[in-house]
Formats: sequence, C-alpha cells, structure tokens
Amino acid sequence: MPGSANPHAGAVAIVVSGWDAEAWAQRFRTLAPSRPIRIWPHQIERADEIAYACAWRAPHGSLAEFMNLKAIFSLGAGVDHLLADRLLPAVPIVRIVDPDLTARMVEYVVLHVLIIHRHQRLYDAQQRQRLWRDHDQPSASEVSVGVMGLGHLGSAAAQALRGLGFQVQGWSRTPKSISGVACHSGADGLDAFLAASEILVVLLPHTPATEGMINLALLRKLKHDGALGGAHLINSGRGLLQVDSDILAALDQNLLASATLDVFPQEPLAQESPFWQHPRVTVTPHNAATSDPRFLVRNVLTQIERLERGEPLENTIDRALGY
Amino acid sequence: MPGSANPHAGAVAIVVSGWDAEAWAQRFRTLAPSRPIRIWPHQIERADEIAYACAWRAPHGSLAEFMNLKAIFSLGAGVDHLLADRLLPAVPIVRIVDPDLTARMVEYVVLHVLIIHRHQRLYDAQQRQRLWRDHDQPSASEVSVGVMGLGHLGSAAAQALRGLGFQVQGWSRTPKSISGVACHSGADGLDAFLAASEILVVLLPHTPATEGMINLALLRKLKHDGALGGAHLINSGRGLLQVDSDILAALDQNLLASATLDVFPQEPLAQESPFWQHPRVTVTPHNAATSDPRFLVRNVLTQIERLERGEPLENTIDRALGY
Repeated sequence: MPGSANPHAGAVAIVVSGWDAEAWAQRFRTLAPSRPIRIWPHQIERADEIAYACAWRAPHGSLAEFMNLKAIFSLGAGVDHLLADRLLPAVPIVRIVDPDLTARMVEYVVLHVLIIHRHQRLYDAQQRQRLWRDHDQPSASEVSVGVMGLGHLGSAAAQALRGLGFQVQGWSRTPKSISGVACHSGADGLDAFLAASEILVVLLPHTPATEGMINLALLRKLKHDGALGGAHLINSGRGLLQVDSDILAALDQNLLASATLDVFPQEPLAQESPFWQHPRVTVTPHNAATSDPRFLVRNVLTQIERLERGEPLENTIDRALGY
Repeated sequence: MPGSANPHAGAVAIVVSGWDAEAWAQRFRTLAPSRPIRIWPHQIERADEIAYACAWRAPHGSLAEFMNLKAIFSLGAGVDHLLADRLLPAVPIVRIVDPDLTARMVEYVVLHVLIIHRHQRLYDAQQRQRLWRDHDQPSASEVSVGVMGLGHLGSAAAQALRGLGFQVQGWSRTPKSISGVACHSGADGLDAFLAASEILVVLLPHTPATEGMINLALLRKLKHDGALGGAHLINSGRGLLQVDSDILAALDQNLLASATLDVFPQEPLAQESPFWQHPRVTVTPHNAATSDPRFLVRNVLTQIERLERGEPLENTIDRALGY
C-alpha cells in the first residue's frame, strides 16, 4: 500500500475552499495510512511538519506558513488559483494530469458539441410543443470544431471529436501536432483557426496572456456561414478567459448562435446574470471535469513517493508562463 | 462518373412515402446522369424498364408491378417496412450499410448516453431555477451500458462508448466478438446481459422474434443499483420492439429512471401520448440516423454497378431471419 513502507513520511496538508476537505483526507488516509494527513486550518498543529500541500483555491497566504514545504499539488486542472497568491512559497507546483480528469472533460466537450450538432435544444422545444418534425442536419464530416488549448485536456477532446467524424482544428500558443487535427499556433495562426471554427471549444489555461481573450473581436472572427449556419461557443476552460458582456453582445448580434458556459469570471454565477434565462445559453456549475478524490489522490501519492525516492516530479508548471 | 459508361443502364425507381423523393432522384441524376431515374408513381411510364427499386415505406404491392426487377434497396437501416409487404418480388433485398448512416447513429447514442451520465436534464432544470449546484457523479468507468443488437450500428455504438471509458456489454442473437465489449448472445445470455446494464441502448432489427421485446418483464431485469442509481432506456432501433404502456409502467414503478425514444410503434407519435410531457422521457422524431441522399445514393449506385458487372451484391438480407 502506498506510503505504508515509510514511517517518517512527510505530512500532507489539505488546503481547500469550497470543496469537501474531509473526502480528500479520507481518501489519503485509506491509500496511505501511515502518512500524517492534516486538514487546514483546524488540524494543523505543527506547521513545520507539512511537506506537501494539496490545494484548491487556498486562501492567499495560507501556504506561506508551511516553512518546510517541498511541493504544492493543485487538486484541479488549473493553477491560476495558486499563482494569484503573492505569498506562495517558491517550491515546485504540480498540476493534476489524470486519466479520470481528462475523461470527464472529454465527456463534457463531446456532450455539448453533440447537443449543438444534433439540434437537441430544438428537439427539446419541439417535445414541449408535442411537435413531430425532423430537420435536415449536416454530417459531422461537414462541421468544423476548433479547440483552443492543446494541452492534455484539449488534445484528448480534439481526438475524441475527430473520432466522431468532425473536422477538427486546434490552436495553441506553441506549435503542436495531433493526428487528423489541423493545428494552428501563436498570434499569427489565430485568425485562420477562428475562421475555420463553427464550434469553438475553449480549454486554455488562465494566464495574463489569455485573460479576457474570448471577447467580441475574437467571436466576430469565427466561421458564421458553416454547415451549422452559425457560430457556437463552449467554454469549459477558465472563467477569466471570457468577457461576459461581450458574449451577451455576440448572442444579441447573432455572432453567436449559442454559448455553453461551465466557467465564469465570478463564481457562483450571480443570481442576476442574464445567462441563466437566456434561451441560447447553457450554464453548468463549473463541473465539466470535477476532481474526484477517489481517482486523483492516488496520482498525488505516486508523485510524492517519486519525490521521496529522489526522482523528479512530473507535470510541474512554469510560473513565468502560468501553466 | 458512375453510370455514365453504360448507355443501357437499368432504370431506378424511387418508391418512398413520407420522404422527399425528389431529393433522392436529384442525387441519383447528378451521380449517374445516363441512368433513367423514375419517381413512383407519377414518373413510372413503363413498369418493365425498372431494374432497381429504392424503397422506404413503399406502399404494399407497389413493387410487385416491376416485372423485371433485379434488386430492392432499402434506403434506411431497417428492412421491416419491406418484409411486411406480402406481394414483395422475390429478388435480393439490400440494406444500407454506410459510414454516414453509422456515424449518425453513433452520434445519437453517444449524445443521449452522455445526457444521462452527465445529469444534463438535472442541470437544465437547475439553470431554469438559477441554481448553481454541483452533484457527485460517477466516472464513465463505473457506469455500464448495454447495447442490444451488434450489427453495424450496434457494434459502432458499443466501440464509441468504450472509447469514452464506459463499461460496455453487448447482446445479439448469435455470438459476436468486439474488443473491450463483454458480448452475450441468445436467449441464454439475455438475463446476464440485462443484469449488467444500467443504460440499455436498443439497436435490434424488427423481426417476428424481437417484436415487443422491450417490455416490463425485460426492463425489470436491468441493473437498478449501479453507479447511476437507476436504469435508463434508449431505443433508437425500431418502434415495434417496444411496448409503450410497459415503458410508462416501468417509469411509474421506478424500474426506469428515464426513457429516450426515437422510435414508436405508431409514428408520428400521437398527440395524446403521455410520452410528450413526461418529465423523464425524451422524444425525438425518428431522426437518430436519417438517410441523407447526399451520402447514401453513391452507396446504392456502387452496388448496382457491382451487379451489372456480374459481381455479388453486399449486405443482402436473409428473409427468414428478417434482417
């Protein structure tokens, strides 16, 4: 059993807000019974024993008290919540790359691309009206989907969409190569990518360079005359990538036929947001790829054990790039 | 261009009801300009020139007038509409097996399995209530989907679901083998298949042996205590496979958590059907895999050309088995 072989295993602090810390602690204790597991703040008695911090939206400054910290693990796909903390200790930051998290994001993207492609919202409305009417629809091979961000999640989503027969384009900061996917990169490649994308799937990290990138000027450049007869946005990346008022304006001006939003600059989404009741908007509560302790704790423990054996950590982030 | 090399190409009759015959005829004329294409009934001047009938729900007896018929092509995935015609000429019947038709069915199955798996109906309801609330959900690897019918469509759907990480079981009349899919067969294998299936996807052909098979006794045998906490039905096969009143009873008794129905014993679905407004039923207008002349006509012409070169037809059906 992981951890049981090492009686002096470094202690793990669970530092989360908005999540159930106990579920994470229980899973750690099940898989690594000999390792001290402390939930911040009430179980932290000796800050100096904490070697590893497992964090999700840790209050800024909370990790600074751990003077013997060796690594920080982000329990979700993003690390922007950590990098915004000016008091963050200068130790390696590891982001979660786990098949379970990736699979959940792929499910979300495939589900919402298919809801759009198969006109499911129209058929839902027809059902309420007891209306039996079929509509012509393009083949997936005639519909082009653009995936922005080609890291683990974006690449997996692009490949799944390709497997269903869609035309798939990708865009990333640096050049990537994915079989069957037309990959664009950098500022120079952005316009051509957007012009080919009828459904835009956003899976970028939130960094100073990407903040506010999904704005009216960008949405205007999408492919509006494709097989679907309009452009559609799916953002399951980060809320701060998008400008809410610009998405509403794009819907209003029919630059967007629909928007599917899992993330928002401010979460939970405000009660008064026009997104809730907009007939062409789908809102989900930031659960496209929820971190499940049953799957992810094993991943963190494997990395901790690598470090304790003197091996390098995997999936560490570059603080300058922000991901 | 197909057909243009043969000045004495056999004439094709388009015999459809409920579909736009002209769209099919136009596509035939585009791809095979030298071949006579006749829309039944008004363009049939000489019944003896018709060598091939392309049929969808042809009125019974309508094909019997073609005394020189060489083959009948079903323009949709099923052939039950033909076999119910007691006056059907004794020539080979070809069913459509086409990547486009298969891809559309896979889209439908994946979409509706994911709507169930990802609780999309619950999140839709929450959105109407401006409610931001996440719910625990199993990983696809914890959810088992059973596909009944492992022909071209069922096999492709099973493989796509497997690719998304679901546990997939299959059932067919005769033994089949699909990588990664636990295949059951025959009457002896049915109960074990059902007991392992939380989401039942029905893609069986309609034959005397399968008519009414999706009844209360069968639905009772599904896996009710799986990761989803209830059993779900998706029928995108044939309407006459299902007993509508039994599906309603199963929903009422919570033997079914939801039903997604693309097909019905009587179509269009009657205005007074309780399915339309049932909160746990999704109705679609028999469009899971619509035959698109842009893709399928090429397939029919290829087969006609095979026959005219003296080669055997592909995908002919066995009248005794009914598929």
